[in-house]
Amino acid sequence: MSATRYTYLGPAGTFTEAALHTLPEAATRELVPLSSVALALDAVRGGEASGAFVPIENSVEGAVTATNDELASGAPLMIYREVLLPIAFALLVRPGTELAGIKTVTSHPVAQPQVRRWLAANLPDAVWESAASNADGARLVSEGRYDAAFAGEFAAPIYGLDPLVKDIADARSATTRFVLVGRPGRISSATGADKTSMVVWLPDDHPGALLELLQEFAVRGINLMRIESRPTGEGLGNYCFLIDCEGHLSERRVGEAMMGLKRICPQVRFLGSYPRADRQPSTGRRPGTSDADFTAASDWLSRCLDGRADA
Amino acid sequence: MSATRYTYLGPAGTFTEAALHTLPEAATRELVPLSSVALALDAVRGGEASGAFVPIENSVEGAVTATNDELASGAPLMIYREVLLPIAFALLVRPGTELAGIKTVTSHPVAQPQVRRWLAANLPDAVWESAASNADGARLVSEGRYDAAFAGEFAAPIYGLDPLVKDIADARSATTRFVLVGRPGRISSATGADKTSMVVWLPDDHPGALLELLQEFAVRGINLMRIESRPTGEGLGNYCFLIDCEGHLSERRVGEAMMGLKRICPQVRFLGSYPRADRQPSTGRRPGTSDADFTAASDWLSRCLDGRADA
Amino acid sequence: MSATRYTYLGPAGTFTEAALHTLPEAATRELVPLSSVALALDAVRGGEASGAFVPIENSVEGAVTATNDELASGAPLMIYREVLLPIAFALLVRPGTELAGIKTVTSHPVAQPQVRRWLAANLPDAVWESAASNADGARLVSEGRYDAAFAGEFAAPIYGLDPLVKDIADARSATTRFVLVGRPGRISSATGADKTSMVVWLPDDHPGALLELLQEFAVRGINLMRIESRPTGEGLGNYCFLIDCEGHLSERRVGEAMMGLKRICPQVRFLGSYPRADRQPSTGRRPGTSDADFTAASDWLSRCLDGRADA
Amino acid sequence: MSATRYTYLGPAGTFTEAALHTLPEAATRELVPLSSVALALDAVRGGEASGAFVPIENSVEGAVTATNDELASGAPLMIYREVLLPIAFALLVRPGTELAGIKTVTSHPVAQPQVRRWLAANLPDAVWESAASNADGARLVSEGRYDAAFAGEFAAPIYGLDPLVKDIADARSATTRFVLVGRPGRISSATGADKTSMVVWLPDDHPGALLELLQEFAVRGINLMRIESRPTGEGLGNYCFLIDCEGHLSERRVGEAMMGLKRICPQVRFLGSYPRADRQPSTGRRPGTSDADFTAASDWLSRCLDGRADA
Repeated sequence: MSATRYTYLGPAGTFTEAALHTLPEAATRELVPLSSVALALDAVRGGEASGAFVPIENSVEGAVTATNDELASGAPLMIYREVLLPIAFALLVRPGTELAGIKTVTSHPVAQPQVRRWLAANLPDAVWESAASNADGARLVSEGRYDAAFAGEFAAPIYGLDPLVKDIADARSATTRFVLVGRPGRISSATGADKTSMVVWLPDDHPGALLELLQEFAVRGINLMRIESRPTGEGLGNYCFLIDCEGHLSERRVGEAMMGLKRICPQVRFLGSYPRADRQPSTGRRPGTSDADFTAASDWLSRCLDGRADA
Repeated sequence: MSATRYTYLGPAGTFTEAALHTLPEAATRELVPLSSVALALDAVRGGEASGAFVPIENSVEGAVTATNDELASGAPLMIYREVLLPIAFALLVRPGTELAGIKTVTSHPVAQPQVRRWLAANLPDAVWESAASNADGARLVSEGRYDAAFAGEFAAPIYGLDPLVKDIADARSATTRFVLVGRPGRISSATGADKTSMVVWLPDDHPGALLELLQEFAVRGINLMRIESRPTGEGLGNYCFLIDCEGHLSERRVGEAMMGLKRICPQVRFLGSYPRADRQPSTGRRPGTSDADFTAASDWLSRCLDGRADA
Repeated sequence: MSATRYTYLGPAGTFTEAALHTLPEAATRELVPLSSVALALDAVRGGEASGAFVPIENSVEGAVTATNDELASGAPLMIYREVLLPIAFALLVRPGTELAGIKTVTSHPVAQPQVRRWLAANLPDAVWESAASNADGARLVSEGRYDAAFAGEFAAPIYGLDPLVKDIADARSATTRFVLVGRPGRISSATGADKTSMVVWLPDDHPGALLELLQEFAVRGINLMRIESRPTGEGLGNYCFLIDCEGHLSERRVGEAMMGLKRICPQVRFLGSYPRADRQPSTGRRPGTSDADFTAASDWLSRCLDGRADA
Repeated sequence: MSATRYTYLGPAGTFTEAALHTLPEAATRELVPLSSVALALDAVRGGEASGAFVPIENSVEGAVTATNDELASGAPLMIYREVLLPIAFALLVRPGTELAGIKTVTSHPVAQPQVRRWLAANLPDAVWESAASNADGARLVSEGRYDAAFAGEFAAPIYGLDPLVKDIADARSATTRFVLVGRPGRISSATGADKTSMVVWLPDDHPGALLELLQEFAVRGINLMRIESRPTGEGLGNYCFLIDCEGHLSERRVGEAMMGLKRICPQVRFLGSYPRADRQPSTGRRPGTSDADFTAASDWLSRCLDGRADA
């Protein structure tokens, strides 16, 4: 039963649910909204669900710290898929409401920086109040508590509202990145456009440690895509780093870099290798970093050890 | 008038206010609580206050993104002081309330991970609800809405409450770091135990840029104390970095590193050099990085150019 | 008197003399051949000559160790000019000698690897013997001691010989680099295509020292053109490095790198900045390394210290 | 027959022969002096000898370029052993000669810098002339051509001479390093105090290539013991590097570094892993670089790929 269940950060009617529906397998899963990232992931850890779908990063707001912290601590989890969803808000109102009649607006606080300029230009006198989620804001509008809510347009029919204005987005290309998380398991095969995620703890009292860590990637020609520091909880100045790099763990260059990290860091947590949502293969790949190059070098090493090396 | 006014992240009775009072000059300032970091800093930008006192980082929760984002964008600001405050919660109740009688508790959501274990052990059946701030939670207890609030012990007298339990802190050494922010001005003199903060944007499409950036510090023997990535708002994958390094901008090694960053990065925002709250001088300082070493090398360079070099 | 005298590695009739004549000022100097690099340089150190012209490097034979060692020790000297001379040998014989009649050939040992293949193909049975210099070999041929000598074609008239075969050179583009050395003095102005030479001693017992040394150049975007290790005489495993880098000491990037070396190394000996003989400006110059970039960064630093920084 | 024959740089009576006799197996070999490094090594290449014993480096004179160049080009060879021999000269004379009667002295030119100071102090008026080898100088003394020769004390009985003065050595700890070279074959087992030698060609037109090459060692915590540049013969500015690093090719850290070089460099020639003559194990070894660390990291990688990683 649990194998067919996915939890997600609810409630229904949010961008998270919209993003989840872009996954083909979502059509055949029981989708269960939960009220926090921690609850969604705990359901996976506990075996009540096979996957949890949660936001991890937003191009305007930055990292979703709850997701990062859950991935970095507790029972291990792995990322199996990522989804990128452009974020544009609609202004949802009860049927019949006009712009001039809007005195109060609501939405999740995260939405505010993305609609601030639109609000200042179009509803300068409206009073803004926080809601627990964008979907919850829509519900409160349908109940008459506020006049309008910023939410995804897809939330309108759920709550019997009308999208009075669509495509509101202050920031160009506002996008949220979501991940499908499961218990550790065999990683899927490389697609040629993959991403690998991990959490790395730095050696104590070693000022150049971050530089050394980055050199493990650089010396194998691997580009970093994201690096996010999080406190370890051991006091100010102690951080771990969530890192996304290009490539798949089964690629030799990535495997060797990960082993390098494992050797020099007190702890490394592998969070998965999965297809990049943008499907872009690595660009500007450094010569000598393909699997074929690694295999050729490995063969050469064997010949050296045997006294049969050419050159 | 504004020269004697400091804004801070309110309301009164929070850890922020308690930290602010550790600054000697706070005694002679008008202290104005405001409801958000943005409002507190905007008052400084607008000239209505000479300083704003806000949290920037917590050893359990991590960066305060609102503060980081405000420092990284908008009219420039600078950090002039930092304060470290150990965070321990008291359970505040109306006089007469006993532990057994507590059915509902409240506090700011940030407090929750730091009291979770205590709650589970001592009040496993109590219902927790979020408040807008710890002080606000205390107010709601005094109004009878909840039975108990987690807040700083100092908030008890303000709201006529009693600290039923003190020193509740799940995480060892939970600490919040606060900064006093002002408009750009002359930085204070070096104390020998200083910290320098900045925001750095990476060159576009340049995979090794973060490594090069760190090497500008490493080659001058400067340790990093914090590195925090934030989205630039230009789409996923575009980050700027808030960096704290040891040392003072007036030190030659720091000045040279900052000029190096300025040359290779599209944008660098200097956020100030100020005394370290822990008063610890740099440890493990690399030979050849003192101001005297820089001056000696500079003199030698002049002699080389003049054809008078020894050796 | 000594101001108009140049010594050079003699005797007359060698490639060194031919290279010296490519310097315009050679026409107005008294040119004095001496029998070793050490003697030629000692004459400069002692004030008997204002310049010494000596080979420093050959594209086939490598470094001229005597020159490197003299520059690295003793009273300081500086390089003021470099000359590149393509090396091609002629087979010099007494008038009337034919190829079939040549039983013995001679030349300086350095010439041997550059004519070995020609000898094997054309005079497989000839016996080769060493001479103290190519010119000396020519002299010995003129005296009848050997049948033929490999030397520069220009040596033929000096010794009354005929160039029986010209342009003998096994290695493609065999070239020798010569330098004009003088006592330390003001360096000439930058030309836009300059080279800077130095000797650098590594810190003791510091395995990564060479890497750190190279990073002082890399972080300022300076390309190395030559790096040559020489023993310090303190026992096996102790080396100093003769380094040529692109650029002129008066360029900010070069000056800063040199100061960096001066700070981290126990000893640095500046050997001069002088025009590149190939007149090639630096290629692939990294953004942010021009003098204008340094000046802009320096101005920005001043504004930061004054609290007037933009951005 | 050839399996029991070792060639060496002759003639007999030189330091090379003395060093060769420190190898236990020398007692059971036919030892054949040849007149040049090239001839000694060609005998190995051609199968007429199983080993060639030649000097490679001297703590005063630096690299023996003939040996380096032979190892870097032609049919591949490998180093199987190294020997360090302290170099101290004796002044050899015909029986009866006294110091006051010495008008002419001779030796190989390499000896001159190591006895210069002694000569100036003790025989300021003696005329010095070069000999083809120290042993040849001794022979010429025995024939009456010169009055005295600087050579190893061990050469005295061979030529019927007396060591008039012993232990002459200007430079503290003058030492020559010799290597036993053979055709490529299985390398001997690691002893725990080993050295690995190689020749590396840099990628064309890639200014930072040397830095990248050194980082392949640094990232695996491997100390370099020697780096020597040699021209490739492709024109000035084109070098290859002879490198000695600590460790044995069968060590994982060394093997991985060598594979890294093989991938990024157009050519790498493995010259062997052999016991260090000083028998010193690696000092200051970086954590995470032992074979056990590599194996642990490799096991962890397998578990990650299988979805069974801990942490």
